[in-house]
Amino acid sequence: MQETMHTLQVELGDRAYPIYIGPDLLDQPELLLQHVRGTQVLVVTNETVAPLYLDRILATLSAYEVASVLLPDGEEHKNLTVLNRIFDELLSNSHTRSTTLVALGGGVVGDMCGFAAACYQRGVNFVQIPTTLLAQVDSSVGGKTGVNHALGKNMIGAFHQPMAVIIDTKTLQSLPSREFAAGMAEVIKYGLISDPEFYYWLQTNIDGLLARDEALLAEAIERSCLNKARVVAADEREGGVRAILNLGHTFGHAIETAMGYGHYLHGEAVAIGMVLAVRVSVGMGWLASGEVDRLRVLLSRIGLPVDSPENMTVEQYLTLMAVDKKVIDGELRLVLLDRIGSAVVTAEVPRDLLVATLSGTS
Amino acid sequence: MQETMHTLQVELGDRAYPIYIGPDLLDQPELLLQHVRGTQVLVVTNETVAPLYLDRILATLSAYEVASVLLPDGEEHKNLTVLNRIFDELLSNSHTRSTTLVALGGGVVGDMCGFAAACYQRGVNFVQIPTTLLAQVDSSVGGKTGVNHALGKNMIGAFHQPMAVIIDTKTLQSLPSREFAAGMAEVIKYGLISDPEFYYWLQTNIDGLLARDEALLAEAIERSCLNKARVVAADEREGGVRAILNLGHTFGHAIETAMGYGHYLHGEAVAIGMVLAVRVSVGMGWLASGEVDRLRVLLSRIGLPVDSPENMTVEQYLTLMAVDKKVIDGELRLVLLDRIGSAVVTAEVPRDLLVATLSGTS
Repeated sequence: MQETMHTLQVELGDRAYPIYIGPDLLDQPELLLQHVRGTQVLVVTNETVAPLYLDRILATLSAYEVASVLLPDGEEHKNLTVLNRIFDELLSNSHTRSTTLVALGGGVVGDMCGFAAACYQRGVNFVQIPTTLLAQVDSSVGGKTGVNHALGKNMIGAFHQPMAVIIDTKTLQSLPSREFAAGMAEVIKYGLISDPEFYYWLQTNIDGLLARDEALLAEAIERSCLNKARVVAADEREGGVRAILNLGHTFGHAIETAMGYGHYLHGEAVAIGMVLAVRVSVGMGWLASGEVDRLRVLLSRIGLPVDSPENMTVEQYLTLMAVDKKVIDGELRLVLLDRIGSAVVTAEVPRDLLVATLSGTS
Repeated sequence: MQETMHTLQVELGDRAYPIYIGPDLLDQPELLLQHVRGTQVLVVTNETVAPLYLDRILATLSAYEVASVLLPDGEEHKNLTVLNRIFDELLSNSHTRSTTLVALGGGVVGDMCGFAAACYQRGVNFVQIPTTLLAQVDSSVGGKTGVNHALGKNMIGAFHQPMAVIIDTKTLQSLPSREFAAGMAEVIKYGLISDPEFYYWLQTNIDGLLARDEALLAEAIERSCLNKARVVAADEREGGVRAILNLGHTFGHAIETAMGYGHYLHGEAVAIGMVLAVRVSVGMGWLASGEVDRLRVLLSRIGLPVDSPENMTVEQYLTLMAVDKKVIDGELRLVLLDRIGSAVVTAEVPRDLLVATLSGTS
């Protein structure tokens, strides 16, 4: 099976790291072991993922002083209080600065484990083993880690790069379809913002992807990671171009916060947000109006929501978007498309257009 | 008064910053204003310091969108729960990534404000205005920020450099004598680890310093910051030589954790720890036995404790020291002196010697 593995190097100078993509990588212990430093390992996972894969990972690490911690599953638990359980486990096992953390699970596990690694003793090593499509194409590239605050998503965090990312595509076979769909929203995002050919490829191959064809999935993941890695390498600390990765996220974060974490999955909120962003782009005269429907059809085919929550007001959107990380000195900046496969960050959207789009009258 | 101000540049490449030292610097608004970015400022202070200086700082910042948050005073409040109050304030005031945080207070305020600045939206700017001797000579150089965990001190944190540090020596006139003494422990540390001339100067000038002579204080602070800045510039991320700044701290942290935060001040625990470190150094044959008494006399003159807490066992020391950040793969490393003014980090201390020293039989 070795020959079907692809390795993608994320180029970040002395923080460069490899992403391994392929089937059955969890059964190749050396992939993980070569990146473990020191003698102690803490595996951070959750209640849903642990029964599926934890035993295999612990067996791989049997030569080490290994502990594990199971977090509750779900975005609503991504907060400082639950984060502290990771520190409890590290300290009660006397883990030192040379420990290695392993994130085994989806985006929430990866974000929290990565943030704990960034903060524990002011920084220790960690390896990502993402087991959801969303985490594989999103959290595994870029080094963004963190937790939510009651007043805003991902507001507390750090940039902290992993030593390696191990993506076993077999883990997607057991992923619930709602989670799978949420991950596909981010896959589609990469096409929209920087890879028009990939966007058309996704439209062509959507049935095979939904049937979870392994080869198609591996290709979609690799292409997503490549697109993200290219953007991140150009802007590790999010000073500029990296913001385009947030297509649909300004709207999406507002939706998630307004509805309460756990109501929509992150990818579902991003799907709605991308439709809004494309709609605003059409309103700016940058895209043909047919692009809205084309995107809605693709997202709907995957089973993703495409309309704003009925009970969410324009006022709620505007208030929650005011704390977006892209706001500079009170000025809201949105990621829009100036053509399919090309994103721009702009503060030029007329308020009327924004309000009309959010209220559904445009 | 401008002519009595000294400026010391901490050389850290693109994270270099100035430390201003002198009397009445809080009355020179431009010192702070030149380092504020954006239009929003959050002043983080505590209940004790706010009545003394907050109004002056708020007046200085009157042209900005400014908010303030008062933390409870004391090391026992330096935790994730209280840290979250800073995030509450930032988010409820819609502070963006271009906000500036100002730490007005002692080491606890500086550590927490700095950590909040490191984590808020994955990193915003901050300025330190330390108002205790300890914070002025310790927290203002080096970029260490963080909070405590119930199982270990400073176990959760980040390296995050301030834009500037403003040290108004007048703030020391109102400092309670116990706090002043705790700060002097760290001042003495710099002499012991890297500046023998300074150590002798402190012994000669201790009466004037205890009488809080402004010129002597400014000299002691500048010399302390210079010594620390030299060590930090050589090792920003604490890979090596920087560990010597922890003379007495491995013992001290164990004492603080064992006795509960708030029982001893940090500097008091460090004073006891330095006596233990010097004692072990004598046991190694590296220092003349007279150095133990010489240090005890100086510390006692200042009003600092010099003996281990009576109810603290050797077992407690060893357990708590096992999570020290200098432990590598289970091996305890101690900062000792191979002569006055020269520190080394060593894993070579025989366990018998350590146990004998901790049990008071050596």
